[in-house]
Amino acid sequence: MDALGYYNGKWGPLDEMTVPMNDRGCYFGDGVYDAASSANGVIFTLDEHVDRFFNSAKLLEIKLTYSREELKKTLNEMLSKVDRGEYIVYWQATRGTGRRNHAFPSGPSNLWIIIKPAKIPDLSKKIKLITIEDTRFLICNIKTINLIPNVIAAQRADEAGAHETVFHRGDIVTECSHSNVHIIKNGTFITHPVDNLILRGIARSHLVQVCMRLGIPVDERQFTLTELFNADEIMTSSTTTLGLSADTIDGKSAGGKAPELLGKIQNEVMREFTEVTGYRFPNGPAGA
Amino acid sequence: MDALGYYNGKWGPLDEMTVPMNDRGCYFGDGVYDAASSANGVIFTLDEHVDRFFNSAKLLEIKLTYSREELKKTLNEMLSKVDRGEYIVYWQATRGTGRRNHAFPSGPSNLWIIIKPAKIPDLSKKIKLITIEDTRFLICNIKTINLIPNVIAAQRADEAGAHETVFHRGDIVTECSHSNVHIIKNGTFITHPVDNLILRGIARSHLVQVCMRLGIPVDERQFTLTELFNADEIMTSSTTTLGLSADTIDGKSAGGKAPELLGKIQNEVMREFTEVTGYRFPNGPAGA
Repeated sequence: MDALGYYNGKWGPLDEMTVPMNDRGCYFGDGVYDAASSANGVIFTLDEHVDRFFNSAKLLEIKLTYSREELKKTLNEMLSKVDRGEYIVYWQATRGTGRRNHAFPSGPSNLWIIIKPAKIPDLSKKIKLITIEDTRFLICNIKTINLIPNVIAAQRADEAGAHETVFHRGDIVTECSHSNVHIIKNGTFITHPVDNLILRGIARSHLVQVCMRLGIPVDERQFTLTELFNADEIMTSSTTTLGLSADTIDGKSAGGKAPELLGKIQNEVMREFTEVTGYRFPNGPAGA
Repeated sequence: MDALGYYNGKWGPLDEMTVPMNDRGCYFGDGVYDAASSANGVIFTLDEHVDRFFNSAKLLEIKLTYSREELKKTLNEMLSKVDRGEYIVYWQATRGTGRRNHAFPSGPSNLWIIIKPAKIPDLSKKIKLITIEDTRFLICNIKTINLIPNVIAAQRADEAGAHETVFHRGDIVTECSHSNVHIIKNGTFITHPVDNLILRGIARSHLVQVCMRLGIPVDERQFTLTELFNADEIMTSSTTTLGLSADTIDGKSAGGKAPELLGKIQNEVMREFTEVTGYRFPNGPAGA
């Protein structure tokens, strides 16, 4: 089995799994999720992801029927059913099952788990970005499955032969379709503050910690599109990519002016991942 | 069978129907929908709903694999399997099936249908409203299944013992959690213009047409919360409610100052519904 699906205690090959049509995820997208990378059978930064998941559920008033420890046990049990390679461990809670009616149902929430292969990329490979106006709702701090604007943004990148799409509200850069975005300028790591306009990325938090550990100044403040285009380096971060860097935005050359500093950050990020998981990449990390 | 579910050609009792876990509706809310009222086996304003559904799909670039005529035929076929009472006929298209990946999949979209009982309310009954800040995304003109803010807003109404929640962006009233909202002031029917901040409600369009037919001036412009509280009458409209009126907002008395004009509008709305469907309410319309 190369990919596994789980729903309220039942599990099997992902592509064969079904769920009730009356699950509120199906017609309202009424749910929250989280996801973590795993390798060597170890889920990286699992506690932080589980904490964030419980926080998302709390903010959306979705009642979870299990403890953090029980959830971690279930995730690890499911992970043990696949091999010890690189996987993404994804889970979501939807606000119960019932005939379509906006107000909350009385019954329990539903737990979904998806485990599928996902290679950690080679961080030395550069990615291409495009930019798009951020028209999303104002609760981007909650990791919900209401992701249509993110889907559309990612599709635009795909069509442009790029890897990610940077959202901006007017002139202010917020984040990407499925990662956070940061710049390095004059030796300082600059990233949008944590508020309702971005997700508090766990890879983002680790990048900030890595910078502080390395003595690199961190400035959590809004930055503009002009600053993005003129940055010394542009980084994106997410659970599955840890911390990549870009060399192109909207088809124009960008970044590449502080490769040494960038390399130090990326080496430390990768060192942490391999140390925690004890994983040895069989052929080195994959292409970006 | 009191409620029916349909998924890509398979159908059965709604509460027993299942769908693939890999349907993009399940983890991205990546779909559009529409819904119409039916009575006496006749789907009211079906053409308009089908046209809007095709428009929503077009705007979200979801490729439908059937014509308008084929969809109407399928909806009517499914409706013929329940009795000739009052139902809501709901359908949605999700952007295909596949393992979670933001960019569009190559396969076809999925068609879901839900038919369940839904009583047309007694329009003479008053409803209670509450208000809430509108934090939704900026594509509210597209009828998507990304509905978390609407769910939360409806729940707030439920907890307050109210029937609907009015969204406002700052001081400007936009619409409700699952209906449009309008005011009558000095004999004029005032309603938010059709743009990306509201859904182009079909019941709303019919209310506008009814007003014009009755010689009531219509002003499609933004109005403020203060205007809402001070309106002569406050109306909401949706597929299942046609056109209700409110007597309370956030616990304060409101409206009720132009009952004759309101009654003329509501009578004409109900006359149209019963004429088109040929339906006779067995015990009169239900309570609001």
